[in-house]
Amino acid sequence: MTVTVGLGPGIFDGRFGLANKKPAHLAQIPDLPSDNLAAATTGGDLSLQACADDPQVAYHAIRDLARMARGTATVRWTVLGFGRASAGKNQTTPRNLMGFKDGTRNITSDADYDEFVWLGDSAGWMAGGTYQVVRKIEMNIEIWDADVISDQQRVFGRTKVDGAPLSGGSEHTTPDFHAKAGGELKIDPRSHVSLAAHEHHGGVKILRRPYNYTDGLNQYGQLDAGLLFTAYMNDPEHFTRIQTRLGSSDRLNEYISHIGSAVFAVPPAPRAGEYIGQALFR
Amino acid sequence: MTVTVGLGPGIFDGRFGLANKKPAHLAQIPDLPSDNLAAATTGGDLSLQACADDPQVAYHAIRDLARMARGTATVRWTVLGFGRASAGKNQTTPRNLMGFKDGTRNITSDADYDEFVWLGDSAGWMAGGTYQVVRKIEMNIEIWDADVISDQQRVFGRTKVDGAPLSGGSEHTTPDFHAKAGGELKIDPRSHVSLAAHEHHGGVKILRRPYNYTDGLNQYGQLDAGLLFTAYMNDPEHFTRIQTRLGSSDRLNEYISHIGSAVFAVPPAPRAGEYIGQALFR
Ligand code: HEM
Ligand code: HEM
Repeated sequence: MTVTVGLGPGIFDGRFGLANKKPAHLAQIPDLPSDNLAAATTGGDLSLQACADDPQVAYHAIRDLARMARGTATVRWTVLGFGRASAGKNQTTPRNLMGFKDGTRNITSDADYDEFVWLGDSAGWMAGGTYQVVRKIEMNIEIWDADVISDQQRVFGRTKVDGAPLSGGSEHTTPDFHAKAGGELKIDPRSHVSLAAHEHHGGVKILRRPYNYTDGLNQYGQLDAGLLFTAYMNDPEHFTRIQTRLGSSDRLNEYISHIGSAVFAVPPAPRAGEYIGQALFR
Repeated sequence: MTVTVGLGPGIFDGRFGLANKKPAHLAQIPDLPSDNLAAATTGGDLSLQACADDPQVAYHAIRDLARMARGTATVRWTVLGFGRASAGKNQTTPRNLMGFKDGTRNITSDADYDEFVWLGDSAGWMAGGTYQVVRKIEMNIEIWDADVISDQQRVFGRTKVDGAPLSGGSEHTTPDFHAKAGGELKIDPRSHVSLAAHEHHGGVKILRRPYNYTDGLNQYGQLDAGLLFTAYMNDPEHFTRIQTRLGSSDRLNEYISHIGSAVFAVPPAPRAGEYIGQALFR
């Protein structure tokens, strides 16, 4: 099991005498196009992400930490995620609840981790740490399920079975965003991958670690499920930049709704004999 | 993956011309002591229980079945269960969210299955089938977590680490409900196992298949989790009999609340080339 701890902007708002230690890029995510955020799933001063093969183990850790924090902190929101929808180095790519492979063009190389995820020495006590952006994204899966596969593929810009870009090749072929057939771009410019690709964001990449969740039924009596999108990056503005474009034009927006949002500074892993965030409190 | 299908009392209420085929023991569970049922998690005409190692596989089956039923049936309530809290024949006993081993004295022998679970030939089209009782049971786990272990053990009548009865021995030692120490019964007569044991219900047993669930936070901002209690038996009255006693005196009631309830007739597994419930519709 691993537990990842994040510190929200509120930790540095002066209440704890830490205002002068605020990480350089830690600020609330601004309102973004097509946001539909609910207060009950937005914000928070602390983030605890417990990951384990067995959900009971992960949930137990959260409970134990919540119990120890009693009187000091309360739980603001919580999501039980399952079936990670992103691929690690040696995994085949898992699928998200929309049935598509999710994680194909994710960060995997050490060079990309260094360039886009970990903070460098100039970050002071945050050196070796990162930022975490969390979005709770509801999916209209019953409506999605009623859609034809050709349209679903157009929405993502990839094939459903193989996850290959619509410009051709197999899953790990680099998408060709200029390829045309009959005068039309093969990968729709409003498809999710076209709008999200680093080629269209000045080369900026983020590390995605999304999980599936279900919340029973929604207010319309339909299956309520979605993606707990978590992503890591050395500047939350990278998320904002990508989501600004997705939120305005992504074909996927017809089927999803961002209902929760939060941002945290993740201190570096503690060295042996130290505690998390020791360089901050010392 | 396995899918278990159940038919609620409503299927036989006359709407479908099946009133004369109503299974002998299929009737709504009556109001029981300390019930706290919510309409949103009670009742239903059909039960679909999808079980798989991977929650995504189980959820996919439910979605696909819901999609096929569109226009005919809608989803009334749904729970994502995890970490089955009952032991099969060759499993070590798993723990429920209260941290206790759950399933120690469950039905495992073929003889008990025949006597208490499967319906015999006299059941007509239901021969080889069974009944399913479902209860959604909320746990006040934050309050439970604040309780001392000695009290928790008294509540269940078993030890927390080993699951041994408080009358002595190890997990699979038969509890001695008469054993005393210092004039007091070693297993509190208001403990969960004492009140539930078949010795105190004329020998009647049920097959328990409970799952854990979490629903985020409750209305008091505390972690909301519990047990999706499902049980199989050849007469739902067996459940009613046990729960009547538990609901009135179980020490566990201080920490739990029954918020959902439903009962279903489970047709026998279809033979090759047949469909589920064929003997009913033929
Ligand atoms: C329910 C919401 C979402 C779903 C179902 C989804 C699904 C997918 C899928 C299937 C892919 C293609 C496979 C891959 O390369 O991983 C993809 C790619 C990607 N997504 Fe999402 N995504 C969602 C939300 C987001 C959000 C909120 C962001 C960031 C703001 C994002 C950023 C990306 C990026 C950067 C890529 C890689 C594009 C490329 O370089 O080809 N996604 N997503
Ligand atoms: C949140 C609710 C419940 C929890 C946490 C719980 C937990 C447990 C535990 C830890 C045991 C002891 C180990 C074992 O033999 O499996 C047990 C036994 C048992 N429980 Fe429950 N249970 C719950 C609800 C129920 C309900 C609603 C019923 C039926 C009305 C029930 C019927 C039984 C029976 C028959 C036994 C076996 C008693 C024996 O013969 O020793 N339980 N339960």
